[in-house]
Amino acid sequence: MSELNIGLDDLGKVFPANFTEAQVAKAQTLFLKELAYDAHKFYAGKMMTVPKCGYYGYNWFNVWYTPGVSKVSTTIRDDNLTSYDLTNRGNFVAVVSDSTRVLGDGDCTPPGGLGVMEGKAFLMKYLGGIDAVALCVDSKNEKGEHDPDKIIDFVKMVQPSFGAVNLEDISQPNCFKVLDELQDCDIPVWHDDAQGTACVTLAGLINALKLVDKPIGDINMAFFGAGAANTTICRLIMAAGADPENIIMCDSKGGLHKDREDLKADPRFYRKWEICEATNPKKVDNIVDAMKGADVLIAVSTPGPGIIKPEWVSTMADKSIVFACSNPVPEIYPYEARDAGAYVVATGRGDFPNQVNNSLGFPGILKGSLLVRATKVTDTMAIAGAHAIAKTAEDRGIGPDNITPLMTETQVYPTVASAVAMQAMEDGVARIKLTAKEVYKKTEDGIKESRTIIDSMMKEGFIKAPPVSLLENALKRALEQVD
Amino acid sequence: MSELNIGLDDLGKVFPANFTEAQVAKAQTLFLKELAYDAHKFYAGKMMTVPKCGYYGYNWFNVWYTPGVSKVSTTIRDDNLTSYDLTNRGNFVAVVSDSTRVLGDGDCTPPGGLGVMEGKAFLMKYLGGIDAVALCVDSKNEKGEHDPDKIIDFVKMVQPSFGAVNLEDISQPNCFKVLDELQDCDIPVWHDDAQGTACVTLAGLINALKLVDKPIGDINMAFFGAGAANTTICRLIMAAGADPENIIMCDSKGGLHKDREDLKADPRFYRKWEICEATNPKKVDNIVDAMKGADVLIAVSTPGPGIIKPEWVSTMADKSIVFACSNPVPEIYPYEARDAGAYVVATGRGDFPNQVNNSLGFPGILKGSLLVRATKVTDTMAIAGAHAIAKTAEDRGIGPDNITPLMTETQVYPTVASAVAMQAMEDGVARIKLTAKEVYKKTEDGIKESRTIIDSMMKEGFIKAPPVSLLENALKRALEQVD
Repeated sequence: MSELNIGLDDLGKVFPANFTEAQVAKAQTLFLKELAYDAHKFYAGKMMTVPKCGYYGYNWFNVWYTPGVSKVSTTIRDDNLTSYDLTNRGNFVAVVSDSTRVLGDGDCTPPGGLGVMEGKAFLMKYLGGIDAVALCVDSKNEKGEHDPDKIIDFVKMVQPSFGAVNLEDISQPNCFKVLDELQDCDIPVWHDDAQGTACVTLAGLINALKLVDKPIGDINMAFFGAGAANTTICRLIMAAGADPENIIMCDSKGGLHKDREDLKADPRFYRKWEICEATNPKKVDNIVDAMKGADVLIAVSTPGPGIIKPEWVSTMADKSIVFACSNPVPEIYPYEARDAGAYVVATGRGDFPNQVNNSLGFPGILKGSLLVRATKVTDTMAIAGAHAIAKTAEDRGIGPDNITPLMTETQVYPTVASAVAMQAMEDGVARIKLTAKEVYKKTEDGIKESRTIIDSMMKEGFIKAPPVSLLENALKRALEQVD
Repeated sequence: MSELNIGLDDLGKVFPANFTEAQVAKAQTLFLKELAYDAHKFYAGKMMTVPKCGYYGYNWFNVWYTPGVSKVSTTIRDDNLTSYDLTNRGNFVAVVSDSTRVLGDGDCTPPGGLGVMEGKAFLMKYLGGIDAVALCVDSKNEKGEHDPDKIIDFVKMVQPSFGAVNLEDISQPNCFKVLDELQDCDIPVWHDDAQGTACVTLAGLINALKLVDKPIGDINMAFFGAGAANTTICRLIMAAGADPENIIMCDSKGGLHKDREDLKADPRFYRKWEICEATNPKKVDNIVDAMKGADVLIAVSTPGPGIIKPEWVSTMADKSIVFACSNPVPEIYPYEARDAGAYVVATGRGDFPNQVNNSLGFPGILKGSLLVRATKVTDTMAIAGAHAIAKTAEDRGIGPDNITPLMTETQVYPTVASAVAMQAMEDGVARIKLTAKEVYKKTEDGIKESRTIIDSMMKEGFIKAPPVSLLENALKRALEQVD
């Protein structure tokens, strides 16, 4: 057993030597949860607001507030776009959720999502140099139902204060309507669970296909699970060049195709019905048949293991690619899939190779969109982001266990921002013009500044380190819960 | 002419020597506005978000985000009040406006209020150690009307993310309904234009009455103007002990009393009608008669000068008290009122003695409410705040030209916070118990920390000083506009 340290290095080694691998995995997750509780309490949350402007004496109140600020008010009144120059709006993202599907924990009631959304704001700042605020909202209407129209109305109301909105952890089917109806609200509205996952999955797929030397237009694909994430992944992959006729998607009731009267009848599931209409012409009706001869499987269905059987993987084409992305446990463990013949295996987990990790995408995508003051994030911008993520990994070399960059390869963020901003200009949704180099530099500088500020706040003692006893207590509680 | 410096010291002396006093006043306001424009552009806004928690290596992402944060989500789900311990909610205020009555500039369209609301967030942090975010919202309904129900619904939706809401610059009559209907939304909703002004006005009145040795229960009062601010001032002063029968309020149509059928008929003006029912039993119908023999005049009506005539002031009682609080120019200049016999004169301006300045109230009132996790700010809490402001000035000595503390007398904030928190506990609206000393200490520490962070960010170069040429250009443009 190693000693616990504040850097949480060698985390796997702090558990008893007689623990099995499964016990270590369980203990580690429990420890992180217990530590999260204590550490959140220690700091009373994760984000705060501070001035970004100087204060040089009493008279500056008259500049930052009345009477001076009046000129800012009237200038913006006469031309709303000057709000990007005169306020923080242009670098400010609202992380909006109704907390009805908080990561693995389902409906957590509105304030229950605050920990995750503040966490997202933390990532925005640390990874992308973006200011962000957690807005967890109550989406219940008078009938006591979670109402997508309430979230839509909320975002439309608050839109003038932000440069972009990041939707998060909204349960389906509400999430579809919310995202689609907000595409024309004048600022980018990005649904990270769906579009973000789709973008990073596509990035991984692009590199995996390079390794097996199969063009995207030729491959047969099986999709398992038809939630917000997987339907968006499918749509984006089709937009990136996959042939819809070679795609079969299955949900818990079977294959998606034109005979699915249940989906045709329920307009809330229009995104699924679109896939029924476009794909699976042979009306394959189960995942076992869908996987036969498939080059690629993309599963975002039910936490495993044991959801995808190794014998199904063995029926796939030569050099098959398996994305098993349910969290916290993939539908099939990577070693099982590999043993069954898969050539590249990706999951959602950071402790296995090839993590499909949203944090590779959203910081650069949103930063690039903000810098050119985009009115929306188009699918082609998301695809450009995916290619930039893939290229970042390719440039330093890829292999079957190494298809995506790590979060520590920070050049991914300015690279993505730059590609996304250029595509925004090409798509006609950018409000100002910048060169690729300018976007890269501004993004890189912003990230560097964010990190230097955090380092400085720790060094100056504004952010104090928790005592090691806090870590030890969390570990003790975790170990008590392991059988 | 002195040289301009970044501290904006001796601001009055940077203008040409041949300027009249009126020209200097005009030039100074113009300079502050031009400088505000340039300085806001220089910094691209005033506030940003930064982590308040430590980052000690890659594994901390697993604490601040998934999988660790899951324990925060489920803990809050099971007991919503733990959101005050585990997130920043307990020190976080939403500054909400629909920008329909932005300071002196009227309807500025939704983003037009961002400069003012970010300024308020700046003051929250600098004066009260409170984190705050500007939320300027579009309150227009489908008919294109500014709809109070939309603002009410918005605040109710976003309430789970904040410890308190500061409403600001919402036009009347919408502001009345918005404030009143949000009193039971589980967190304090404070309307600073109305309640904040009322609290600070009452503070000034308390000290002025000490100077003239008249008990509040005995005085005759005239109120000129019946907007959100003055009706709230009147209500609070009555709650603090003034006799309604000795009060006469006038709006642009005359005295408020039971014969005012126009106000009785329009339910949106119920706050004015309440005053009609409670005050002015003799049905005095104009401000000239209302002021005859009055001990106190409180005017929040139309920017002056010349709105209140000196000859009306001369008809007031001995040692009369005049609050002429319209901005940017009081209804009567202090020297005119004094010449006409007033003993104490207060205005909204910082360049005259006795400024009625909201910034003395809201930081301490909101901080005190947040610290005991109050569910609302009651009138008695606001009155306790007013007494604390008055006491702060009294303790260091008061006089006719010195009835309120200055913003630089920073002990006012912890003093107010402490008094307000104690009253919240007495009123049964506090969710946790603290001693007066604890509230004082926490508030004082929070303010000290805010200021140290800002100083440190300037010292470390994260906040750069604008070049003096920026100040000079602003001055040049200001001078060009002075006749």
